[in-house]
Amino acid sequence: MRSENLGRTLLPKRLALPVFASDAISSVAYAPDEILLTLAFAGTGAALLSPWVGVAVALVMVVVIASYRQNVHAYPSGGGDYEVATTNVGSRTGLTVASALLVDYVLTVAVSVAAGTAYAAAALPVLHGHEAKVGVAVVLVLTVVNLRGVRESGRAVALPVYLYIGAVALTVLVGFVQRMTGNLGEAESASYQIVHQPGLDSGLVGLAGAVLVLRAFASGSVALTGVEAISNGVPAFRKPKAKNAATTLGVAGAVSATLLVSILVLSRMAGVVYVDDPSTDLVTASGQPAGDAYHQYPVVSQLAHTVFGNFMPAFYFVAVVAGVILLLAANTAFNGFPVLGSILARDGYLPRQLHTRGDRLAYSNGILTLAVAAIVLIWAFDAQVTRLIQLYIVGVFVSFTLSQLGMVRHWRRLIPTQVDPQRRTSMRRSHVINTVGLAVTGTVLVVVLVTKFTYGAWIAVAAMLVVFVLMNAIHHHYATVRTAVALDDDEATSRALPSRVHAIVLISNLHRPTMRAIAYARAARPSVLEVITVGVNPDDVDQLRTEWNQVGLPLPLKVLDSPFREITRPVLTYVRSIRRESPRDLVVVYVPEYVVGHWWEALLHNQSAMRLKRRLLFMPGVVVASVPWQLESSARTRNLAEQFDARPLPGDTRRGLGGPQQ
Amino acid sequence: MRSENLGRTLLPKRLALPVFASDAISSVAYAPDEILLTLAFAGTGAALLSPWVGVAVALVMVVVIASYRQNVHAYPSGGGDYEVATTNVGSRTGLTVASALLVDYVLTVAVSVAAGTAYAAAALPVLHGHEAKVGVAVVLVLTVVNLRGVRESGRAVALPVYLYIGAVALTVLVGFVQRMTGNLGEAESASYQIVHQPGLDSGLVGLAGAVLVLRAFASGSVALTGVEAISNGVPAFRKPKAKNAATTLGVAGAVSATLLVSILVLSRMAGVVYVDDPSTDLVTASGQPAGDAYHQYPVVSQLAHTVFGNFMPAFYFVAVVAGVILLLAANTAFNGFPVLGSILARDGYLPRQLHTRGDRLAYSNGILTLAVAAIVLIWAFDAQVTRLIQLYIVGVFVSFTLSQLGMVRHWRRLIPTQVDPQRRTSMRRSHVINTVGLAVTGTVLVVVLVTKFTYGAWIAVAAMLVVFVLMNAIHHHYATVRTAVALDDDEATSRALPSRVHAIVLISNLHRPTMRAIAYARAARPSVLEVITVGVNPDDVDQLRTEWNQVGLPLPLKVLDSPFREITRPVLTYVRSIRRESPRDLVVVYVPEYVVGHWWEALLHNQSAMRLKRRLLFMPGVVVASVPWQLESSARTRNLAEQFDARPLPGDTRRGLGGPQQ
Repeated sequence: MRSENLGRTLLPKRLALPVFASDAISSVAYAPDEILLTLAFAGTGAALLSPWVGVAVALVMVVVIASYRQNVHAYPSGGGDYEVATTNVGSRTGLTVASALLVDYVLTVAVSVAAGTAYAAAALPVLHGHEAKVGVAVVLVLTVVNLRGVRESGRAVALPVYLYIGAVALTVLVGFVQRMTGNLGEAESASYQIVHQPGLDSGLVGLAGAVLVLRAFASGSVALTGVEAISNGVPAFRKPKAKNAATTLGVAGAVSATLLVSILVLSRMAGVVYVDDPSTDLVTASGQPAGDAYHQYPVVSQLAHTVFGNFMPAFYFVAVVAGVILLLAANTAFNGFPVLGSILARDGYLPRQLHTRGDRLAYSNGILTLAVAAIVLIWAFDAQVTRLIQLYIVGVFVSFTLSQLGMVRHWRRLIPTQVDPQRRTSMRRSHVINTVGLAVTGTVLVVVLVTKFTYGAWIAVAAMLVVFVLMNAIHHHYATVRTAVALDDDEATSRALPSRVHAIVLISNLHRPTMRAIAYARAARPSVLEVITVGVNPDDVDQLRTEWNQVGLPLPLKVLDSPFREITRPVLTYVRSIRRESPRDLVVVYVPEYVVGHWWEALLHNQSAMRLKRRLLFMPGVVVASVPWQLESSARTRNLAEQFDARPLPGDTRRGLGGPQQ
Repeated sequence: MRSENLGRTLLPKRLALPVFASDAISSVAYAPDEILLTLAFAGTGAALLSPWVGVAVALVMVVVIASYRQNVHAYPSGGGDYEVATTNVGSRTGLTVASALLVDYVLTVAVSVAAGTAYAAAALPVLHGHEAKVGVAVVLVLTVVNLRGVRESGRAVALPVYLYIGAVALTVLVGFVQRMTGNLGEAESASYQIVHQPGLDSGLVGLAGAVLVLRAFASGSVALTGVEAISNGVPAFRKPKAKNAATTLGVAGAVSATLLVSILVLSRMAGVVYVDDPSTDLVTASGQPAGDAYHQYPVVSQLAHTVFGNFMPAFYFVAVVAGVILLLAANTAFNGFPVLGSILARDGYLPRQLHTRGDRLAYSNGILTLAVAAIVLIWAFDAQVTRLIQLYIVGVFVSFTLSQLGMVRHWRRLIPTQVDPQRRTSMRRSHVINTVGLAVTGTVLVVVLVTKFTYGAWIAVAAMLVVFVLMNAIHHHYATVRTAVALDDDEATSRALPSRVHAIVLISNLHRPTMRAIAYARAARPSVLEVITVGVNPDDVDQLRTEWNQVGLPLPLKVLDSPFREITRPVLTYVRSIRRESPRDLVVVYVPEYVVGHWWEALLHNQSAMRLKRRLLFMPGVVVASVPWQLESSARTRNLAEQFDARPLPGDTRRGLGGPQQ
């Protein structure tokens, strides 16, 4: 997409909601399960508390969404948490947010794919026990699709998201109606009793119980992931952008919160039981452990099964749309990760070439990095959502908290400068909202860190630290180099021209590539031109001399002695001697080079030339001029490369969806 | 070592024998075991035949040695089997020999190391069951030692070889004396009975028995490996080279044959029992299987134990010297493999850069290839000599047979041209010897192929085939390229100079590296000089333009439009347009390039420049001139590289030992 067209494809709210909120809404597919599961450690009775934990999460969501609506109005350019934190707090804070976001993109893929495979295994029992393999395969497919740069359309995304919302809403509504009419059945799992964990004998009383409730709350907070995506997508909304984005944000939050609480309430009504390890944590009424024969389905699947009785198509439908929306959620990370990488590269925190927008490889590298990291996580944690979730929420709340800190500073800076009393009042209001947001998200961050650190959050914190240190080191390196190469006042010296050009053509045989190199060197009319060969084998030298005389060029052939039968060292020594004799001369070394079409051809040609070139580049005052000779096979590669160039860039297609995401 | 000094370090016979014959003599350490083991398949009685199988092997050895004495006289330059076959039969035959030799070098390492670990496990029971790991570790140590290019001296090699010969000879002699005086004890293993294999109930009668004897003979023929090494080493002998080499060859053969037969005879006297799988193949007098508690020691170790009774130092001494000579045998392959690779590269069968004698990397690549292949074999066959030996002897006899075929043709060609009747008679005699050699080695090759093909020889044959096809393909590729680049009669066109030079300097910032590139381009005084930048970001372009005007160079700055925010494509398009407008112009693109000292710095710099360079090289009529800017870190790397250059080359140190080996 051309730069000037970037702003053209704007999304109406009804398309923007599914495009940006698939991640936020999809978490409803696994957040209730995690709340139920954590409470279940304290036995069957404790699980009854789950709706209240859901309400607490929903309240936090209200605060976060209210706060981000302020972000949207203040940064309608879609700045994102990284820019909000960098601008208002400082670059180190911004870098912290960026580290958290990069780690979280990886976890978004890992958690969403793991949850999706759980739904797939519910619909296709044959997949049971192979979740990790299925998850890795799914990530590989997503990777290939994203590397190819397939064009997504907003409409294609919208359908499954609305189907998912509709399916869950219908399940919940039908369930509530059944309950009111007294027709709601019992979930299959309701016949099991939960074995509580040692140390939680008396349910949720005491410190252990309180900590467990906080852990359940922390796990449920996963429903908040993805909320910030809309605030990054403001530029893609139709006008009035900020207002539309804020409305969409509110709708997405309301949908997520309502579904989450409703699912938990209905689960309690239907007696849904969901535990960490069903084979040991569940016992039948007669006290027998459930054992390996019992397969535990996701909570939403269990509800669909209960509500729609034996109407299996409804059960399968819920599994399929849940799987699809989780795939879409994983895919948002594939879009967001390279874009954030590009922004960080622009600011010198990642290798600079990742910034180039039009550079397919930059995106490819980002996509591959994300995929490898997600696959490692899925494999290491055996695609178990419950274990992955322990790592997930830290990053989200680090970025929430620091972004809110940035917003608080933003208003504190702007309010004194605002003269219009009405707008000043509005800013004061926003300041209060963001302050509350900061307090709440900060508190949740502490809760998450305390309750989950030893369960796996430390891995995420360590990963953020590594990413932070790495990006800081890259930034430092670039700064050092920038200082070293900056033009100083003594520019005159750098503008002084070398007095003469001493050209050297290196040949080992007389054939068309060397003749071309000699011709090009002569065309450049250097002050001195020498044709050089390294005398490894006396017979070869004699033959070359004979051929040279036959060709009859008006140039002498100079043979460098090579007592140790090597090539690189005599040439380096010779060039060094020229540099020593005339330090102000520029030495241009012409190296004939084969251009090949296949990787294996590269093993058969140019190896000595390449080594020599690499070594020559270390010498100041030397220019290495590659004179290519295109072998026939190279034509095919050139054509392929040109076709490759002509393909749409992944970055472009995605921007069609909704502007720069972070 | 300088070329003119290569011939100086010549070896007297007493040093040449251990240097070149360690491989041949070391096979005595495992050949008797293999003969005994194979015959044992037909039960205790069959094993009594082993001395006669040893005699058959010794007879073949006499024929082979007599034949190779002719090779030595006819090719005193140390041509080796590859050159003998290529010169006299043809290049495809030579290539077959080379494939066989390359595969055999790998097997020399694998078999020698595996046999060495068996001796080590005999002396150190703690190694039992970890032979594969120990073997891999040994190969890794050999690899590092050879990569470092440690100087070996002939004397250092001579000592263990003579110690080994002395130790085995002493064991055998003392044993014979004990036997004559009636004092020879029974080997520990003599108390066991061998369980014969199904189908061989009646011992060695019938077809199955005959085939088994042939298999035992084929396994014992492993004693012949390494015989050809001396014929390759002729140039390293003192004068008269050929005569001394022939004498050494005879001595080495006599030593090997005598030791082999003596060991087998003494084993029979002492009742040594040696089987494939002692835990199931052996039963005690009471009919109990030997089980896992019984450790089977190599035959020579068993003999030392029997002869020297409870004098354990003698037992350990034999184990240590056997281990050392087997290491030396493996090391000869580490010397020979890269040398043969270099010869094959010279003839265009392997990547050309492997030929460069003075090139440490060429040797390193050969050493690493050999090590990886040997490790794979040791690991795959769990360091079991018996299984590895099935693969080993095919290659040796392919090369023996084809070399003898070459010698027969050699004499047939030379005899008619010889006028001196005395020398003609001598040639006739050689012709007869080599013809007998051809018949015997050819027969043994057939026996080996038939009796061992399904036991593992097919793997070696398949590997040879792969190597053959690969080398042929490389040769074909080089031939095609040579034709494509050869100077034709229309040389005038290739000597025509481009009419003008159109220089382009690519910049993205104004700093010292770009200023250097511009200065160098100006110094070359091209017909046209343009400074070009790609306009990805309008703000960046404006800033660059301002800085450009401040610097005040007498050149315009040209901005290429990049509607898709990419760098490579606009430059390629622009260069293409120049080429189209003035096809006879030479386009020189100056690319400023950072020279870095660490691999990770390469990830942070130049990536866009590198991609552009690679793509530009595909365009005819374009020269890419790299203008390096040496970052500070590069100075350290340059110094390291210069130190690396100053280190002795592995090829040199080895040539001090004994000239070009194949």
